[in-house]
Amino acid sequence: MFSNRLQEQEAAGRDPLIGDLLSITGPGSVLYKHEDLVAYECDGYVIHKAKPRAVVFPSSTEEVSRVVKLLYSRKIPFIPRGAGTGLSGGAIPIGGEVLISLVRMKKLLKIDLPNRRAVVQPGYINLKLSNSIAEKGYYYAPDPSSQRSCTIGGNIGENAGGAHCLKYGVTTNHVLGLQMVLPDGEILELGGVPDVPGYDLIGLITGSEGTLGIVTEITVRVLKKPEALKTVGALFDRVEDASHAVSDIISAGIIPAALEMMDQTAIEGVERGNYPVGYPKDLGAVLLIEVDGIAAGIEEQAEQIIAICEKRNVREVRAASSEAERTRWWNNRKQAFGAMGTLSADYIVQDGVIPRSKLPEVLAKIADISNHYGLRIANVFHAGDGNLHPLVLFDARVPGETDKAIKAGSEVLKACADVGGTITGEHGVGIEKKEEMRYVFSEEEIALQLAVRDVFNPENLCNPDKMFPSPSRCVEVKQAAAAAP
Amino acid sequence: MFSNRLQEQEAAGRDPLIGDLLSITGPGSVLYKHEDLVAYECDGYVIHKAKPRAVVFPSSTEEVSRVVKLLYSRKIPFIPRGAGTGLSGGAIPIGGEVLISLVRMKKLLKIDLPNRRAVVQPGYINLKLSNSIAEKGYYYAPDPSSQRSCTIGGNIGENAGGAHCLKYGVTTNHVLGLQMVLPDGEILELGGVPDVPGYDLIGLITGSEGTLGIVTEITVRVLKKPEALKTVGALFDRVEDASHAVSDIISAGIIPAALEMMDQTAIEGVERGNYPVGYPKDLGAVLLIEVDGIAAGIEEQAEQIIAICEKRNVREVRAASSEAERTRWWNNRKQAFGAMGTLSADYIVQDGVIPRSKLPEVLAKIADISNHYGLRIANVFHAGDGNLHPLVLFDARVPGETDKAIKAGSEVLKACADVGGTITGEHGVGIEKKEEMRYVFSEEEIALQLAVRDVFNPENLCNPDKMFPSPSRCVEVKQAAAAAP
Repeated sequence: MFSNRLQEQEAAGRDPLIGDLLSITGPGSVLYKHEDLVAYECDGYVIHKAKPRAVVFPSSTEEVSRVVKLLYSRKIPFIPRGAGTGLSGGAIPIGGEVLISLVRMKKLLKIDLPNRRAVVQPGYINLKLSNSIAEKGYYYAPDPSSQRSCTIGGNIGENAGGAHCLKYGVTTNHVLGLQMVLPDGEILELGGVPDVPGYDLIGLITGSEGTLGIVTEITVRVLKKPEALKTVGALFDRVEDASHAVSDIISAGIIPAALEMMDQTAIEGVERGNYPVGYPKDLGAVLLIEVDGIAAGIEEQAEQIIAICEKRNVREVRAASSEAERTRWWNNRKQAFGAMGTLSADYIVQDGVIPRSKLPEVLAKIADISNHYGLRIANVFHAGDGNLHPLVLFDARVPGETDKAIKAGSEVLKACADVGGTITGEHGVGIEKKEEMRYVFSEEEIALQLAVRDVFNPENLCNPDKMFPSPSRCVEVKQAAAAAP
Repeated sequence: MFSNRLQEQEAAGRDPLIGDLLSITGPGSVLYKHEDLVAYECDGYVIHKAKPRAVVFPSSTEEVSRVVKLLYSRKIPFIPRGAGTGLSGGAIPIGGEVLISLVRMKKLLKIDLPNRRAVVQPGYINLKLSNSIAEKGYYYAPDPSSQRSCTIGGNIGENAGGAHCLKYGVTTNHVLGLQMVLPDGEILELGGVPDVPGYDLIGLITGSEGTLGIVTEITVRVLKKPEALKTVGALFDRVEDASHAVSDIISAGIIPAALEMMDQTAIEGVERGNYPVGYPKDLGAVLLIEVDGIAAGIEEQAEQIIAICEKRNVREVRAASSEAERTRWWNNRKQAFGAMGTLSADYIVQDGVIPRSKLPEVLAKIADISNHYGLRIANVFHAGDGNLHPLVLFDARVPGETDKAIKAGSEVLKACADVGGTITGEHGVGIEKKEEMRYVFSEEEIALQLAVRDVFNPENLCNPDKMFPSPSRCVEVKQAAAAAP
């Protein structure tokens, strides 16, 4: 709860920084009490927790700039934060940071449909953008599962994906311009049109997890809604058959808007969740395959997909019979992470990427890892992209189990990297996978990335020590994370 | 012509650098004689010319690395060069550079169709990739007009586009991995899968015009060929009607694979070129609109496009009646730049980008500029992307006309920037548009980009002084360019 003026004056007396922040952002815009800060100890990655020094809520680019200049001048580290839905701990403090929450900067600033663009503030909720232009027949493509609550600013930080990225690409493919506050407080404008000359700094900043500055205004591309949609659900006895069907669909030259898979454990979870579909308990895998485009060809594409599944021993396959059924299928899928709570006290979502052809091999390896650690692993994935989300289920109350879950998750990522894949598709590196960066980068490559960071963030004050392992510290951070309450 | 061993020994005696280069790349791999170097004085941008110190032809990444280490150790500047088809002078020497030609590194290293990837050396010709996988039903999407001769390495440097980028994106959307030699000679590997964690260095390097290092191996995405194609040709009396038709097509939710326009002057040129179609002489504009996808919907999309054109006073509109006719239409369009030679002794191709809705306004402004300078300007453009290619026609033999053409081109770019557009869509900045970078970037923004360059290229030896204006020198370079023979 925000304090009244008197309380704020007292707080400023105890810690001048609070007073200085309040003088920039006004009364009722800074949290500093222990009980208020607890909610900001972590984001969607709950393994590591640490209290921020304070949370400040600026309302404008100008205020962000002044807050950052203040913190920069005092060498106080700071972290931008959106809705806190991130899954890799990118918005979790490490020690003494001030969180700069962007949730008050939540305006839709401009819609320019003739040029297919919209301009939003960073705290604007992802799904609101699509909703606000739906009537005119447009939408914003990137659709992370958290789209009802995550912010577009956070999406920029993580280069967020979603179920429909197979056809439409991830966030970086939809960002046309950025305004940002650099780590020294200066305001920078980038882009606004496609094909900006010079180096692609917009691309560099998208997915930089808040380590290069704080984005304060975003110009995104919006798309015309497809004329028609068709969603096919396919139920398989065996996950291998489902994997082969995925390859066959892609090989047939079909580019589905979405191509999602859940395995048996995942199905068990979603069926216990808030949106059960009624999938049989003994299923090996479910595929959701959505095609979109002009109405004329949709029916035939769906039939072609059904025929492919039938050749791969599908138990049952059909198109959704109504928009209501389609929505039920998607709600069921999109709640998958949260629904794991019905199976297990705790879980870690992993986020590996592999070449599509390695799917059966990596799934077998994940089963081995699951057996080795005695922990169930549910697999939910954007199968068309080769983007796996293995969910490692564990119980933090059992001594040692958190540590085992972290190790199992890390081994899953190693398995992905070993087949020529990588350690994150859309959730970012954050605090969680800093060490795993070594699976895909050499010391020299990491040094080069850090040199790029230093151009923007030379003092490492802006979301410090995220994304990259620091030779002397990454092991301890990981251990501290594992030991955290 | 390459020299024999004896000549090479003599040359090495006169200039030890030649001997040192030959010792790395072997006999018959270095050009150094005046008559041989003349061919390397410029690339597709012929306004500025300067002789390189030598041209070296390495055959492997290892050789590139050793050549670069040698040059780096002696502080000798160098420039990577592909086929020399670039239109902004990115491969033109400024003073004393060694050109590193990649044309001997022209292998197709790997095709991995299940994962839709191919790995090529930088000297591999763009069109060869599509040709080599066409039988299996695949192709490589970026298709610059020069695709019969340009290299994929050069495409990376310029982030090349092409007629089909409206639907499929430019080069950067198709690069999955890079091997490169950094400006100090070290070899770096980046990516190989989508969604690489860390900063998007592949995106940073794509389009960096050879200023961050020399790309020596490229992993690209290949696509399944669409099941069906349909190309509509629409002939308009007035360019305004054609512009409105472009907007209407996009507004209707159709995303054509290509949406190209030529105005009256451009049509006059292409009709005199090698691939005349027989367009009437008094036409105001031609649109080529290509849709692709699954066979089922294609016919209806083409009909919808035809109906839209009919509402915009089209004189004649129909789909190509055969593959042969379609090829004729495209050959005619793709030779547009070269065909300007039939209208004028010389021309400069410009490359501005504007928000699509500003098309009529900017075309009117270009007409004003044309009148003001008394120089004809033909307009050929990727209308769907808002990417204009105004061709400023002039005669370099007429005193002062080159200078006028440069000024007119620059004013066209200013007009694009003034409506919220930018100065290059796909041709790069090179030596040509360094000064025009100021139309879109502040001093601070340019300084930030230079700081990023310094991370990779701290000594500015790798394609020095391209892309960015240097406060004290850009005016003189421009004047020197104008005064060049």
